[in-house]
Amino acid sequence: MKKIAVFASGGGTDFQSIIDANAKEQFCTIEYLVAGKPQIGAIERATKAGIKTLAFDKNVFADKAAFYDYVADVLKNSGVEYIVLAGWLSVVPASFIKQFENAIINIHPSLIPAFCGMGYYGLKVHEAAIAYGVKLSGATVHFVEADVDGGAIIMQRAVAVEPDDTPETLQQRILKVEHEMLPKCVKLLCAGKIEKRGRTTVVKE
Amino acid sequence: MKKIAVFASGGGTDFQSIIDANAKEQFCTIEYLVAGKPQIGAIERATKAGIKTLAFDKNVFADKAAFYDYVADVLKNSGVEYIVLAGWLSVVPASFIKQFENAIINIHPSLIPAFCGMGYYGLKVHEAAIAYGVKLSGATVHFVEADVDGGAIIMQRAVAVEPDDTPETLQQRILKVEHEMLPKCVKLLCAGKIEKRGRTTVVKE
Repeated sequence: MKKIAVFASGGGTDFQSIIDANAKEQFCTIEYLVAGKPQIGAIERATKAGIKTLAFDKNVFADKAAFYDYVADVLKNSGVEYIVLAGWLSVVPASFIKQFENAIINIHPSLIPAFCGMGYYGLKVHEAAIAYGVKLSGATVHFVEADVDGGAIIMQRAVAVEPDDTPETLQQRILKVEHEMLPKCVKLLCAGKIEKRGRTTVVKE
Repeated sequence: MKKIAVFASGGGTDFQSIIDANAKEQFCTIEYLVAGKPQIGAIERATKAGIKTLAFDKNVFADKAAFYDYVADVLKNSGVEYIVLAGWLSVVPASFIKQFENAIINIHPSLIPAFCGMGYYGLKVHEAAIAYGVKLSGATVHFVEADVDGGAIIMQRAVAVEPDDTPETLQQRILKVEHEMLPKCVKLLCAGKIEKRGRTTVVKE
């Protein structure tokens, strides 16, 4: 069974979608939750599911770089092969990405290349989509490479933007789609069914 | 019955989709085809359907600006209210747009804001989508404002990009969607069912 770690910075609903799907289909072992802060909802979900947590705590680590080094060591030593960024609000350093080449995926709540990159996180993505006036937004799962939100795309799903949408209502509708896509992609990744081909991927569903 | 003019620069399959839908549903009078060149497929389609043609001919008009002035006069004098750019490969000048405010729509073969603006026309749009590695592309109908491909969006439809797609095969699949969307939008426009609301629109289907 492939071991994975999930990185989350907030409530952890994307993380929960992987826990739930895996409870039914057992496509991986969720070895660690890596948490962006010491007290976030995702940690409670990990505890409930019996998953170990590595949390960034300013009082323990000199800085984020030291934390990433620590996390890389722990994950490598425990045999974690894949990393899933599930609402991770911190730029993963190139030195970390190098140690998990083609093995880190991220979910972003827009149809990349629209509304992505530095500055587009959380509600800001949906604010930008509504301000632009698009009729379709959605979600994208992609490999993580040195460019923020710039790695090869694995899966995209479209979601209609309604005239009365607020950033919050649009976020909620896109989250529903994220909770279907993300576990699906993790399952495909662990089964070796995602082949990277340059800037894109071939997914054998 | 609202009078429209359709602008086309090539074979005119988008133009034909409006002719065909209107033959069945009679939502407008297609008063003129405006052709980007004197000999293009769209002109044959106009002739067959009994639609008058205004064609840009370098031997007749001093330049494109003179042609746009001439076209504006003819359309205004014949009571044309709406203009549909259906594969029009020329930037419409601001002076022309001013004379048909909120009355010009365009179809673009991508999910705007992806792969649009200056330099993205014809096959180049699909080449860019494939090179980027997106899993979803599509088509967008939008109002024409001074920014190229930057006007308020009326309708967007997604189309899956397949691993073996070439720019040509992707173009063909997106064209099928265009041929459904474009007549639908023209019908809604002529029926007064598209309300512009700042950067976006409310469409009452």
